[in-house]
Amino acid sequence: MKSIVIHAAKDLRIEDQEVDIAGPGEVLVDMAAGGICGSDLHYYNHGGFGTITLKEPMVLGHEVSGRIAAVGDGVTDLQPGQLVAVSPSRPCGDCRYCNEAAFNQCLNMRFYGSAMPFPHIQGAFRQQLVAHAAQCAPADGLSVGEAAMAEPLAVCLHATRRAGPLLGKSVLVTGCGPIGLLSIMAARRAGADFVLATDISDFTLSKAKEIGADETINMTSGDGLAAFTRDKGHFDILYECSGVEIAVRGAIEAMRPRGIVLQLGLGGDMKLPMMAITAKELDLRGCFRFHEEFFTGVSLMQKGLIDVKPLITHTLPLSDAVQAFDIAGDRSQAIKAQIAFQ
Amino acid sequence: MKSIVIHAAKDLRIEDQEVDIAGPGEVLVDMAAGGICGSDLHYYNHGGFGTITLKEPMVLGHEVSGRIAAVGDGVTDLQPGQLVAVSPSRPCGDCRYCNEAAFNQCLNMRFYGSAMPFPHIQGAFRQQLVAHAAQCAPADGLSVGEAAMAEPLAVCLHATRRAGPLLGKSVLVTGCGPIGLLSIMAARRAGADFVLATDISDFTLSKAKEIGADETINMTSGDGLAAFTRDKGHFDILYECSGVEIAVRGAIEAMRPRGIVLQLGLGGDMKLPMMAITAKELDLRGCFRFHEEFFTGVSLMQKGLIDVKPLITHTLPLSDAVQAFDIAGDRSQAIKAQIAFQ
Amino acid sequence: MKSIVIHAAKDLRIEDQEVDIAGPGEVLVDMAAGGICGSDLHYYNHGGFGTITLKEPMVLGHEVSGRIAAVGDGVTDLQPGQLVAVSPSRPCGDCRYCNEAAFNQCLNMRFYGSAMPFPHIQGAFRQQLVAHAAQCAPADGLSVGEAAMAEPLAVCLHATRRAGPLLGKSVLVTGCGPIGLLSIMAARRAGADFVLATDISDFTLSKAKEIGADETINMTSGDGLAAFTRDKGHFDILYECSGVEIAVRGAIEAMRPRGIVLQLGLGGDMKLPMMAITAKELDLRGCFRFHEEFFTGVSLMQKGLIDVKPLITHTLPLSDAVQAFDIAGDRSQAIKAQIAFQ
Amino acid sequence: MKSIVIHAAKDLRIEDQEVDIAGPGEVLVDMAAGGICGSDLHYYNHGGFGTITLKEPMVLGHEVSGRIAAVGDGVTDLQPGQLVAVSPSRPCGDCRYCNEAAFNQCLNMRFYGSAMPFPHIQGAFRQQLVAHAAQCAPADGLSVGEAAMAEPLAVCLHATRRAGPLLGKSVLVTGCGPIGLLSIMAARRAGADFVLATDISDFTLSKAKEIGADETINMTSGDGLAAFTRDKGHFDILYECSGVEIAVRGAIEAMRPRGIVLQLGLGGDMKLPMMAITAKELDLRGCFRFHEEFFTGVSLMQKGLIDVKPLITHTLPLSDAVQAFDIAGDRSQAIKAQIAFQ
Repeated sequence: MKSIVIHAAKDLRIEDQEVDIAGPGEVLVDMAAGGICGSDLHYYNHGGFGTITLKEPMVLGHEVSGRIAAVGDGVTDLQPGQLVAVSPSRPCGDCRYCNEAAFNQCLNMRFYGSAMPFPHIQGAFRQQLVAHAAQCAPADGLSVGEAAMAEPLAVCLHATRRAGPLLGKSVLVTGCGPIGLLSIMAARRAGADFVLATDISDFTLSKAKEIGADETINMTSGDGLAAFTRDKGHFDILYECSGVEIAVRGAIEAMRPRGIVLQLGLGGDMKLPMMAITAKELDLRGCFRFHEEFFTGVSLMQKGLIDVKPLITHTLPLSDAVQAFDIAGDRSQAIKAQIAFQ
Repeated sequence: MKSIVIHAAKDLRIEDQEVDIAGPGEVLVDMAAGGICGSDLHYYNHGGFGTITLKEPMVLGHEVSGRIAAVGDGVTDLQPGQLVAVSPSRPCGDCRYCNEAAFNQCLNMRFYGSAMPFPHIQGAFRQQLVAHAAQCAPADGLSVGEAAMAEPLAVCLHATRRAGPLLGKSVLVTGCGPIGLLSIMAARRAGADFVLATDISDFTLSKAKEIGADETINMTSGDGLAAFTRDKGHFDILYECSGVEIAVRGAIEAMRPRGIVLQLGLGGDMKLPMMAITAKELDLRGCFRFHEEFFTGVSLMQKGLIDVKPLITHTLPLSDAVQAFDIAGDRSQAIKAQIAFQ
Repeated sequence: MKSIVIHAAKDLRIEDQEVDIAGPGEVLVDMAAGGICGSDLHYYNHGGFGTITLKEPMVLGHEVSGRIAAVGDGVTDLQPGQLVAVSPSRPCGDCRYCNEAAFNQCLNMRFYGSAMPFPHIQGAFRQQLVAHAAQCAPADGLSVGEAAMAEPLAVCLHATRRAGPLLGKSVLVTGCGPIGLLSIMAARRAGADFVLATDISDFTLSKAKEIGADETINMTSGDGLAAFTRDKGHFDILYECSGVEIAVRGAIEAMRPRGIVLQLGLGGDMKLPMMAITAKELDLRGCFRFHEEFFTGVSLMQKGLIDVKPLITHTLPLSDAVQAFDIAGDRSQAIKAQIAFQ
Repeated sequence: MKSIVIHAAKDLRIEDQEVDIAGPGEVLVDMAAGGICGSDLHYYNHGGFGTITLKEPMVLGHEVSGRIAAVGDGVTDLQPGQLVAVSPSRPCGDCRYCNEAAFNQCLNMRFYGSAMPFPHIQGAFRQQLVAHAAQCAPADGLSVGEAAMAEPLAVCLHATRRAGPLLGKSVLVTGCGPIGLLSIMAARRAGADFVLATDISDFTLSKAKEIGADETINMTSGDGLAAFTRDKGHFDILYECSGVEIAVRGAIEAMRPRGIVLQLGLGGDMKLPMMAITAKELDLRGCFRFHEEFFTGVSLMQKGLIDVKPLITHTLPLSDAVQAFDIAGDRSQAIKAQIAFQ
């Protein structure tokens, strides 16, 4: 069985790995599709991000789908051959935060493809994977690529839930990578009325328009958000998906008093305009990963209530994994690049 | 100018009325369409409902659209010829609740076609109407019938806002008249995942299916909601649109702990199962009218995010108003019957 | 070891019972005080309530404190001799609702002294009890009677949390038994500004005044709440602790629009004024038991932030248990009657 | 009539001013006490703060009380001689935010003693003041000094309301000036269980302990909050009252996941640890001024539910105003310095 292993920045290898056996409550999955996420790219390009650095080789990947190859004892609700989206969220179920049902804050989270603890948590870019049945969302009716989008979609659904009701609200999305575009979809699905997206790439902005943004602004020229700063600002909700200080600062000027800033973009420290945040009583809410929203996302896709297909711009075979990683981060042509494992 | 006046139960007349002039901040509207609401039907069939009874002749109607015929001084954002939905919600702006922005709870509300205060508040089923510009939602791009649906849609959007986030939630709708069906649309628009609708009419249930309910149950036969009562119940949210005690009681059994019951249906006193409500910690929230949601609804329709057209089953000319009232309440063939005023 | 066993209505016996041994993670508690609750009284007076009836003898009691007699393996945070309040809330930790951290809604709850499942869940009115360490709240500094009040206090703290912020709010409490009086304390502790209490007993109303109600009204004479019904009503929050239909109906008239009704009182079906609930958009929230609030209550008592001592009107020895039950329900002289087990 | 006028940094003068007459709906107030606030000190020490600078002489002061000297036409609920706390919050009542009842976000706010618009909004440090009756909270039973504390108390009550329910919560307060200390009181009043306060002054920390903090930490030595950073952090709620970047950064490490940071302290831009905010899903909420909480605060003080007297460390006559300003900012001896106007 082959897997995609990062050894150091720019040192990505396709390696043989032993196949596990599905124990009780587990399933063996023949992996089908894997989407390359921003954190995968950070490991590939820089060997880590922020204070997180690779200390040993690690299988990458956490946006995956596959077909059930075999089921372990006691697994009755999944059938061999069935397409599933596999959630990378594996909380311990036993810590302080799991006991409060804040599973994404688990103290012992074993999220696929994460170099945070040591030994690292090995990822899911591999031809076969043994997973707990509870991680698997049946994805009948979806393509393997759509099923692999359940993970980033769940991130955006989780953020959306943290925003409270969106029905009729005015929404700004800064940064139109996959998370930004899925945030547009999630916001719309939750009833947002006006959605404006910003980025510095015409390609991603055209995608934003295609999948439902009412307006887009390329921040590299023109007046930016100036038209929306009158009377203390316009937007009720911001999905901050850029992780870039200048984008956050500009967006804050366009937020109306008591607006909600959903911080999804991961970046380093930022210098924030505290006077504006305080005086306008903004509400800046960190948003991180997800848990049960993974299953919600699959269901919404199955019913056609969210359509992620336009976001999958590239699908490459496992043998072209390095090329896939090179394409994945190129916002002039790619939104989501996925790898086909079989 | 003709108007539709109720004098007593079953005594509905088309009468001549004088035309008003648009004062400062006002507009004169050539009325286009008017939808017949359940309260209109109560006046028509029973001369009132509950403790509210007709004490003088009253123009009926509060679900209306029209085209601007003339604008008064100071009105700059509406143009003659423009289609508008006219909101019947006219709070005083000055009482305790208006000062808290709870406009639908205004102590001096002058809602069209309402026999609650005396003299009664005359309604909007008339060929011309003078309204405040602030009541008018520009409805360019909509049909006159769709624009007249803004009012009942607003009721359901208001209830939906009271429910908190619906993204991924499981929703039950009891009663598939116009309010029930619009609730299905509103719930879906706000991100509901599973929507089940109940009624006693196959016609309305087929409409429910057509406009997006996942499942429907005709309560006149079979097991009703029994399949959803296991493990203390299933549904997160109930839109109670029947106003019928037996429906509410049955639905309560199918609600999961901490579920939210949105009570939209207006009926008399009801004998409720308090032990279930208390022990399951249900949350029964009265929902009444709307205010700013009127404008939200028009915008969502204009963007194609909500499509009310399938609900308009009948459109009759003003001269056939009595027939329209007779049809409007017949759930074997009608959802929304509207009157064309010109 | 003696315990208090109910066999049938009015058939309460003091019986010998075997002593258990504390297993791993458990403690043996020498019971100190036990408060008689309304449900205990229902079993004593009527052999059950609603659809819940005794089918076998059952040890009563769930409001208890005691001193650690011995600790089982692995228990390190409790010491022999230490006073503890023992929580009767024993959720399974594994069902759908436990996994959502809604522990009080556990499908397999084993709450002390409850005839709901069969075999019944035996209670805690006994001289010794083996409990899980996690049920025990260290109560150093409290009297044994105060510690035994942690349970009903937790009920009121849980309801208070369900009310949202109370700071500066206007609160009505209907029914001034122990739950009503503790609700007054909880509401005040959470920042309520104006607190009015109603009952039909001058004794309990005098207690209400003593422990902090701003005003009290004896509903058996005078105008009741009429002074508070102007302009659609006055109160933001109602703690409904009577379980009596006429009290609920009267209180609803005095609730302001969008007010919150916390239903703590357990009674049978009630005929509710749905028009008022709907039109004023009241929010009726069932409130049932508690879980983590048990520990909150002990901490607040230890810091002197809530003082329950005035509510303990009677303490009788185990040998006088029958007399204690007779006194406990007499609202002309008793608030909380407790039994001393040693 | 004398007033306290700032001309430039360190140029504070006592000047004669003409007396106004109370028009309809207004009252003439003989001013009694005025508390010196941090913003007053900024004008005094630096001639402004951030981008706000003095452009003309301005009467300072917005924390004031007085006795009604005369009432204008139509004022029936205030009597000459009555002590009132005078709210400096004067929203227009007509803008977008006033219409949403977000009065503290009024686009045309005329808050006393504010150099934000030009001409500046003159303040209330004067021997007589004409105010709208609606600004006056009857303060019978309070001292003039307590009544003048209604304003900073309202700031903290407003922040507390923005925090949601505090019952049983764990609270951190950074910065123990008047706002920090009043936040301790407000948090406790709203039901906080554990309250820890930090500062760099032993004097203010001793006050924190005196008025109810469970623990205090002087951040100038020792381990700071290190004991509270285990398992992702401890505190549910932070009242950030320092406006100092290093304090905010340290506090964020001690916040538990999904904790709420109430930002009251006003400072310049801050470099914030966005990774921690995002990954722990903190919720940073700006808190600015207040509106109706002014009246809540007076009522809570009148009932003895909040006691601000320990915070009034200095009261000086009007003639010693400059000395009062010099003392007011000295955290080694002063919490709140007030001026007596008569």
